[in-house]
Amino acid sequence: MPNLEKGMVQVYTGNGKGKTSAAFGLALRAIGRGLKVYIIQFIKGGFDYGELYVVDKLPNLTLKPFGRGKFVTEKPPKENDIKLAEEALTLAEEVVKGGEYDIVILDEINVALNLKLIKTERVVELIKKKPKHVELVLTGRYAPKEIIEAADLVTEMREIKHPYNKGFQARRGIEF
Amino acid sequence: MPNLEKGMVQVYTGNGKGKTSAAFGLALRAIGRGLKVYIIQFIKGGFDYGELYVVDKLPNLTLKPFGRGKFVTEKPPKENDIKLAEEALTLAEEVVKGGEYDIVILDEINVALNLKLIKTERVVELIKKKPKHVELVLTGRYAPKEIIEAADLVTEMREIKHPYNKGFQARRGIEF
Repeated sequence: MPNLEKGMVQVYTGNGKGKTSAAFGLALRAIGRGLKVYIIQFIKGGFDYGELYVVDKLPNLTLKPFGRGKFVTEKPPKENDIKLAEEALTLAEEVVKGGEYDIVILDEINVALNLKLIKTERVVELIKKKPKHVELVLTGRYAPKEIIEAADLVTEMREIKHPYNKGFQARRGIEF
Repeated sequence: MPNLEKGMVQVYTGNGKGKTSAAFGLALRAIGRGLKVYIIQFIKGGFDYGELYVVDKLPNLTLKPFGRGKFVTEKPPKENDIKLAEEALTLAEEVVKGGEYDIVILDEINVALNLKLIKTERVVELIKKKPKHVELVLTGRYAPKEIIEAADLVTEMREIKHPYNKGFQARRGIEF
């Protein structure tokens, strides 16, 4: 198994486009090298995303979406959203601890943290106790400062220009 | 053919990680929807990247790298690097104009522009004359202001934290 010698903790956050895409692109590169990748999707699981239709064609890539088919935004959060996020985090803990996967991507986990669906301390604990060879990737807006402190590599996707006021609508195949 | 109704021009720039990965992730989502994607790589073509080993497994994705197997950094640029970048841009013009591909990704073209391997005016012209349904994606640090002005959607990948001073080395499967 072509393990990484040293796995790091990467965070992709910010209000700009490309956080989830960057994580999927990273997954693509990794499986090209024979690494094993596990993607767990918080919040938006169940929603209809284009990438879901191509994952089956790729070797060594497992994707598990959690969610109820739409973005969660309520504060305070609903019981069911908390339950789903906790299930996702429990799976994340198992997959990371198991050490079988070289890269574990926790997509939109920062949003789940921001909405207080799961506890930040539990994710910081996961980061600190991960096996050395596992690369952990956390995406989503609003990464809490405790996560940024615990991470090795943090990138902010900053929106410089966006066509909101030109009647912009999410497009099938691009935005979802 | 499931064409986009309106293709936009996206730019991913900045000094942070994830620009090329975001473009590849976007490609993955698009082919999941049955869209056709053409990726032309400026500058770094020829170098050994993990994603090159998985592209063959994906339908509707064409990748064409131009370059001489390492990053170009010389100023003034070498004759041969100019020639390769011009070939890449000529292909880009043909592919975009042809309109057969829904998404055309010009990976690292901003770096080629910054190094003056190709003329900014020619790329601005390509943006302005693209068929309406084609989505054009330009990546790389140092996007010139003329490109940012001509684009619809611009995201800056900003480096917030990077483990340079911990003896960081590029890792096979992650950084390349």
